Amino acid sequence: MSIQTSVNAVENGVPVPKPQYDLNSIFTDSVINASGPKTHPRLRQLMASLIRHIHDFARENDLTVEEWMKGVEMINWAGQMSNDQRNEGQLLCDVIGLESLVDDITSKLLIGSNYEATKSAILGPFFRNDTPPTENDASIIKTMPSDGEVVYMHGIVRDAATGEPIEGVIIDIWQCSTNGLYEQQDPAQAAFNLRGHLTTDESGYYGLYCLRPVPYPVPDDGPAGRLLQLLDRHPYRPAHIHIMAGKPRYTSLTTQIFDKNSKYLTDDSVFAVKEDLVVDFRNLEGNPKATLELEYNIKISEMKP
Amino acid sequence: MSIQTSVNAVENGVPVPKPQYDLNSIFTDSVINASGPKTHPRLRQLMASLIRHIHDFARENDLTVEEWMKGVEMINWAGQMSNDQRNEGQLLCDVIGLESLVDDITSKLLIGSNYEATKSAILGPFFRNDTPPTENDASIIKTMPSDGEVVYMHGIVRDAATGEPIEGVIIDIWQCSTNGLYEQQDPAQAAFNLRGHLTTDESGYYGLYCLRPVPYPVPDDGPAGRLLQLLDRHPYRPAHIHIMAGKPRYTSLTTQIFDKNSKYLTDDSVFAVKEDLVVDFRNLEGNPKATLELEYNIKISEMKP
Repeated sequence: MSIQTSVNAVENGVPVPKPQYDLNSIFTDSVINASGPKTHPRLRQLMASLIRHIHDFARENDLTVEEWMKGVEMINWAGQMSNDQRNEGQLLCDVIGLESLVDDITSKLLIGSNYEATKSAILGPFFRNDTPPTENDASIIKTMPSDGEVVYMHGIVRDAATGEPIEGVIIDIWQCSTNGLYEQQDPAQAAFNLRGHLTTDESGYYGLYCLRPVPYPVPDDGPAGRLLQLLDRHPYRPAHIHIMAGKPRYTSLTTQIFDKNSKYLTDDSVFAVKEDLVVDFRNLEGNPKATLELEYNIKISEMKP
Repeated sequence: MSIQTSVNAVENGVPVPKPQYDLNSIFTDSVINASGPKTHPRLRQLMASLIRHIHDFARENDLTVEEWMKGVEMINWAGQMSNDQRNEGQLLCDVIGLESLVDDITSKLLIGSNYEATKSAILGPFFRNDTPPTENDASIIKTMPSDGEVVYMHGIVRDAATGEPIEGVIIDIWQCSTNGLYEQQDPAQAAFNLRGHLTTDESGYYGLYCLRPVPYPVPDDGPAGRLLQLLDRHPYRPAHIHIMAGKPRYTSLTTQIFDKNSKYLTDDSVFAVKEDLVVDFRNLEGNPKATLELEYNIKISEMKP
């Protein structure tokens, strides 16, 4: 019932100093053990670990009420700024590397460590699951910006274990325009601009025309932006294209590929860059529809039994 | 730049299995070290520790994207439910014992451990700093509930080090009515019902008439309530009265006192109960204004130099 047991000891008429606040883990244990028997075992495990880490964080740093309350205000602010267009709670996690970390952990769990599957990267907040189908070799540029460079992006999707091409893999591609805005953030862009929803053919091939990506800042008018500012960091992400690839019986891949010549490759504000995901946009000649080419082959893994 | 370094080793034509995801703390270090030189030293310390604990939490539990996203949704929900009347981010912290812990830490920092000052307890979300002054020995009951029991509450405020009574200490008292609602939550209660704002006289005395407190649930229609439900816990708090006591040059005391006969003393949903704060409401005879008496003396500490 109590955080500390207290004995008002007096010696020669003088109160004996005693530790007034017992900040060891007895209190933390009491909080963890308050969970009832009907708690789901996984939630029990997660909450016990989370409570212990958060209490340790408070104790190790002598966290004050005032400092804690600033954190509470930041969390409340994140919720208040979140809506259909943005997820500020997610973005707060992104700028401390948490989404990238749990993405890695999840991939490891799903794929295991034996296959040479394409590395994953974070989903981010701009995916749409309602993009209409795109024919192979079509353009996903519905609103062409004046400074856009067109890329012929193509590749083969293979089984990571056997190397065999896979037919019928659904590939989602999405990217922002050269102003750094995704179509749902920008009324000047046509609906589904720069979004493709393709299917690999019998040789595992997919191909489309898109834009060379550009760096852009994550939204920095909320608590995540405020945190970046307080941490003396910029909000920029290196130029990237989002990819999702999936087929029944295969582990769905969510990733991003990064232009090797982009700024911010080594200081992505959301820590999503992996060496294996850095790609080279090459000059393309003889194709009137594009000036650049990006060959990007993908390897996905059958689900573990 | 990368989470893992990768060597595509091949031995006798077979790819050599290698750890695909390097989940050690190199990644965590890179996130922590992203903070720039202009970061405030205290924020740098706090964020480094917080990032390390959160990453360790994710790694130790193989936290998945799906589980993390449930946490993000809970945080966003907390912000969306917060307003002038309630602070759901605070309440989420309360039900995992965090406010009680940082309250303890802060008191220790302010008071040190040498004085026998009255123990602190959490402020909670219902304090108002605009309560009008109350005369000593007046009643703070402006809306009398039919099932209310009136208490004559009084005591002497003393210096924790010298034992001398202190004149001119401002005492705020607040409590909910017998329906479990504070006046700002309940249109049926008069403004400032059950709130007192007193000043000790030259003998350190304060006195007022209030209600015997009752247990009540914390608001359980938001994420904190959902978390309590998932953890198979009830939302109730034991019967208590809030007290704040302050005077220039003294460390302000924020505490709660708990009825020793109340339910939930050992399983307060926000973990605020301390042994020293449990009090005894005694039968009172010969006073037409009250049937119960609570003598509660307070010791506050001069600020450390």
